[in-house]
Amino acid sequence: MNDERIQSPAELRDRVRKGAFRRTTAGHCPGFHQANLVVLPAPSAAEFAAFCSCNPKPCPVLEILPPGEFAPMRCAIGADLRSDVPGYRVYRQGRLAEKCNDLRDIWQDDLVSFLLGCSFTFEHALAEAGLPLRHVEQGTTVPMFTSSIQCLPAGSARGPMVVTFRPMPVARLSEVLTLSARYPLAHGSPVHVGDPAEIGIRDLGHPDFGDPVELRAGEVPVFWACGVTPQAVALQSAPELMITHEPGFMFVTDLPRELG
Amino acid sequence: MNDERIQSPAELRDRVRKGAFRRTTAGHCPGFHQANLVVLPAPSAAEFAAFCSCNPKPCPVLEILPPGEFAPMRCAIGADLRSDVPGYRVYRQGRLAEKCNDLRDIWQDDLVSFLLGCSFTFEHALAEAGLPLRHVEQGTTVPMFTSSIQCLPAGSARGPMVVTFRPMPVARLSEVLTLSARYPLAHGSPVHVGDPAEIGIRDLGHPDFGDPVELRAGEVPVFWACGVTPQAVALQSAPELMITHEPGFMFVTDLPRELG
Repeated sequence: MNDERIQSPAELRDRVRKGAFRRTTAGHCPGFHQANLVVLPAPSAAEFAAFCSCNPKPCPVLEILPPGEFAPMRCAIGADLRSDVPGYRVYRQGRLAEKCNDLRDIWQDDLVSFLLGCSFTFEHALAEAGLPLRHVEQGTTVPMFTSSIQCLPAGSARGPMVVTFRPMPVARLSEVLTLSARYPLAHGSPVHVGDPAEIGIRDLGHPDFGDPVELRAGEVPVFWACGVTPQAVALQSAPELMITHEPGFMFVTDLPRELG
Repeated sequence: MNDERIQSPAELRDRVRKGAFRRTTAGHCPGFHQANLVVLPAPSAAEFAAFCSCNPKPCPVLEILPPGEFAPMRCAIGADLRSDVPGYRVYRQGRLAEKCNDLRDIWQDDLVSFLLGCSFTFEHALAEAGLPLRHVEQGTTVPMFTSSIQCLPAGSARGPMVVTFRPMPVARLSEVLTLSARYPLAHGSPVHVGDPAEIGIRDLGHPDFGDPVELRAGEVPVFWACGVTPQAVALQSAPELMITHEPGFMFVTDLPRELG
């Protein structure tokens, strides 16, 4: 874990740009939205925009940039999406081709960037309310499962919803629901509470991504839509080129967390 | 005014499709979102999606359909955007070329449809709370003004925000703000309250679109972002083809009004 918590998104992005910050952004800039990045060539972008609009829980759109543009107008004036994310993944024909720290050499004029809300945002709010976040206590990655909940399809973009799992105290469940519902741009309220089998999860101890966490006495399983969903769906169609952030290494925006 | 208020969106769309409903949808289906329609060829669609994402108050996205698709997946299963809107306008090279009741003959496989939230939705909520809607009392069109508030640009898509004006009782202002804020997909809370000159409006008695309404003693001017904004912006770049609904003749969705 980092000793120092950076508060200002502009300062964090500046450090990233200078190569001095190459790690997860979790815990930093708690007052601001962090974003998933998905970059696609223009011909695939309209369909992906359609998919996001139909599935706002896993794919809450913070900003779409026009073709070729890398400077967000809404999320962070003065930022550059080609250099201000602590790590990138480059997929070609649907396969991971490269991990890198800068996109300037491979940028294309037809690329459309999507900034999608991230659960780090509502986790800050849960933590401030004294609710447990077991994966944070453990210093591990939140457990994620491919559920049996099907996303609404948009053209060829279709697939199941990936969900995150957090155990929460039964006694504070209504607080958990109310708090997370305040952040619709960060996945909002849970998509399922209770029996994992009802959404196709057979074994809570074996997540599809991330690390397992313990469900203790007096706790209930709570599942939220996860920002991994749109990446998984976009990859299914094996686009010629797709660029994303390195998981956990988010783009930190200037959008206040409390923005609806 | 219509004597009969239709409650069911499916019934209203069915009447439209049969040619038996060719008028404003205002006042009908009060429990559901109504939508502005903007249809653009795929090459212009990514930029327009970017513009909407940067300006969620005038352009709240309910659904974007993938290229060529006319059957909404999220807003109304079984509907057809080519026939279920009570009237259409077809613009070519930025000029109104035709008004029609059916798009099936001119539909193209590269067309991307945008469904954007509409103020009829929050007006129902204001009316149910007993707040005055003077243009409804008068049976006229809500007054609209081109304000000096600039939208965030997205590529070549740029321009001022068009706003609607409704006089509201000063004594009930906080209620007006709270109620409309509950409908972020229907323009949400006002963009300005008070002196019209502060947002570049010189004469409340002479709206740029729609009809004037009286501001009475004890009332304050309240301005909301207007769904005419995206159409005005899209037309500025004179796209080869753009199709919209006839003003006031909205697409009525199955999305409950209370949906965030």
